[in-house]
Amino acid sequence: MDYAKESLRLHKEWKGKIEVISRVPVASKEDLSLAYTPGVAQACLEIQKNIDESYELTRRHNMCLVVTDGSAVLGLGDIGPEAGMPVMEGKCVLFKAFGDVDAFPLCVKTKDVDEFVNTVYLISGSFGGVNLEDISAPRCFEIEKKLKEKCDIPIFHDDQHGTAVITLAGLTNALKVVGKKKENVRIVINGAGAAAISITRLLLSDGFQDITLCDRKGAIYEGREEGMNAIKNEMALRTNKDKRKGALKDVIAGADVFIGVSAPGMVTTEMVKTMNKDSIIFACANPTPEIFPDDAKAGGAKVCSTGRSDYPNQINNVLAFPGIFRGAFDVRASDINDEMKIAAARALAGLISDEELNEDYIIPKAFDPRVGKTVAAAVAEAARRTGVARI
Amino acid sequence: MDYAKESLRLHKEWKGKIEVISRVPVASKEDLSLAYTPGVAQACLEIQKNIDESYELTRRHNMCLVVTDGSAVLGLGDIGPEAGMPVMEGKCVLFKAFGDVDAFPLCVKTKDVDEFVNTVYLISGSFGGVNLEDISAPRCFEIEKKLKEKCDIPIFHDDQHGTAVITLAGLTNALKVVGKKKENVRIVINGAGAAAISITRLLLSDGFQDITLCDRKGAIYEGREEGMNAIKNEMALRTNKDKRKGALKDVIAGADVFIGVSAPGMVTTEMVKTMNKDSIIFACANPTPEIFPDDAKAGGAKVCSTGRSDYPNQINNVLAFPGIFRGAFDVRASDINDEMKIAAARALAGLISDEELNEDYIIPKAFDPRVGKTVAAAVAEAARRTGVARI
Repeated sequence: MDYAKESLRLHKEWKGKIEVISRVPVASKEDLSLAYTPGVAQACLEIQKNIDESYELTRRHNMCLVVTDGSAVLGLGDIGPEAGMPVMEGKCVLFKAFGDVDAFPLCVKTKDVDEFVNTVYLISGSFGGVNLEDISAPRCFEIEKKLKEKCDIPIFHDDQHGTAVITLAGLTNALKVVGKKKENVRIVINGAGAAAISITRLLLSDGFQDITLCDRKGAIYEGREEGMNAIKNEMALRTNKDKRKGALKDVIAGADVFIGVSAPGMVTTEMVKTMNKDSIIFACANPTPEIFPDDAKAGGAKVCSTGRSDYPNQINNVLAFPGIFRGAFDVRASDINDEMKIAAARALAGLISDEELNEDYIIPKAFDPRVGKTVAAAVAEAARRTGVARI
Repeated sequence: MDYAKESLRLHKEWKGKIEVISRVPVASKEDLSLAYTPGVAQACLEIQKNIDESYELTRRHNMCLVVTDGSAVLGLGDIGPEAGMPVMEGKCVLFKAFGDVDAFPLCVKTKDVDEFVNTVYLISGSFGGVNLEDISAPRCFEIEKKLKEKCDIPIFHDDQHGTAVITLAGLTNALKVVGKKKENVRIVINGAGAAAISITRLLLSDGFQDITLCDRKGAIYEGREEGMNAIKNEMALRTNKDKRKGALKDVIAGADVFIGVSAPGMVTTEMVKTMNKDSIIFACANPTPEIFPDDAKAGGAKVCSTGRSDYPNQINNVLAFPGIFRGAFDVRASDINDEMKIAAARALAGLISDEELNEDYIIPKAFDPRVGKTVAAAVAEAARRTGVARI
């Protein structure tokens, strides 16, 4: 199927992928007096007395803001806020279908970090949480950090953390397949964008020890001067303890795991051959991966994963964000912290039993009906355990 | 029924009065590829080429923002943005039920006019129109004016214009009942808030000649110095040609029409007795009017209207805003101008035939199934006629 053509035809037919409906009857004067004036005044007064009541008396408890500035939409780059809306609406559709989360899409007409942060902050009282979407790096890091400081609801940049959670889930199972341990493996992550940084942070948080991050200039190490920024400096201090230098092809030699969130064709069969035995390749550039699974396997890779649905082990964010927000909303969490993300990854990994586990089945399928609920339960439990649950 | 108690009970049960749902199937991988990546990219690119396509390919064409700062919620005053949300959700319910308009509620956490304006402007690309709600005067005038200048979508403050449209509709029919003409009647409007100002402006725009506006200090006239502001100064120049001075009880003498959007009990039977024969009383303070219909009739009033559903001739905004936005959206109007408001009022008035018309039936009922569509058609026609229709 020509997805572009057919999708455009359907978008014209759909006339919008979301709709706002009423949950209450409006068939009589009496209905109006209860849902609206004069009856509604009482609900207002209860919230005025205690803002927490906004979770009981309005839709806030289940409402997620999906917000972008249109600066990094899919692989299309900065196409502007209005043009990002079909993706935002699509995301809202997935939130509802896979997490029973109400989600509403907004595009904000600014590229200024503080103006974006202030806009989202000023409307945050209408929502239970905020999903940041398709915002370019490094602005996305600053926006997320500032919003987390200002708001008392979860702020979650899915392009970073959703990808990180599923990568961690897949990697956990891939290590089981090859019989290696997270404490011992050497990992190379290629790319220094939002997803790469977040994957690195989450793997470190989960106890992985030896990670080397590469950008276009090669390995990032403490003391490197060229092409650095605040985030890369932080990464230089927290990764690459051996201060490896050189290009990707140099540092990938002897590694156990390659994780690419970069660009098509960055890895060759020859490069995989230089890796340790039973190597693991996560090649997530989309739609064309850093290396296709067949080519990686020809180089000795044992487990391969991509962002594509036509190969095994697809890294698909829909496995994570709906359940993560569902779990956060169920306990009215004030934050989505690393423990909650790690819990989500473990829950995902745990859906595949030791008997089922094999090199072509390390990540559950998107339509596995257990996924949303299992992730939600684990996330809610982690929120309680770490003290961010409010009910 | 104890509406306050029962409404609060229902609000707890409802857990939100609105919901965001998906309009598209999400049952297979293929569905995902069409509603989301990779297919959705094509819709994004079409909008990037031509922003007008956002009306064809997203829900924007039918999506209205219902937005408040919580500064003048119902008669409760400044109860804060979160506490205003039950009213905003209720408004969204009415938009859907009576106009098939998708409406989404937001509360903005600021009382600063420019910050509010900027926030709404920055997210306006996600909507087809903006309904301002429960914002205190005179800030509401400034906010509406600035937003109209910045945005290319309709900006409509319902507390002003919805009330004005229905008042004009009711007054048009009331004059028929008493056999008077708009060019000749003398009108006193009590109150100088958002609704009073908007009613005055719309009546002037429709050709009414003799209007005197009163506030707490009495008649507003050119040259008055006490208790004036920019809006009242404008009103002083455009109304009260005879420069009447004095209290409400002084200027109401000899008037044909009294319109109150002020406070309970401002008018007595004795005051109505000083008005011209067959006087018309619109006493819209809610829930307790300026004067109850029975007391007004005892003073000689022929036609009475209130904001209450338990008396005849209820001024109920639900008669106007859903159809007005429906009509504006149907032709993708860039504005809701006075001609469109007057067309809405005429359409409403015209729903009552000469045979049906009587002193107790000058305004259609809220649940008259013809209302929404008739208003929408008239508004769309007026938008075309005045050049603000874009399709």
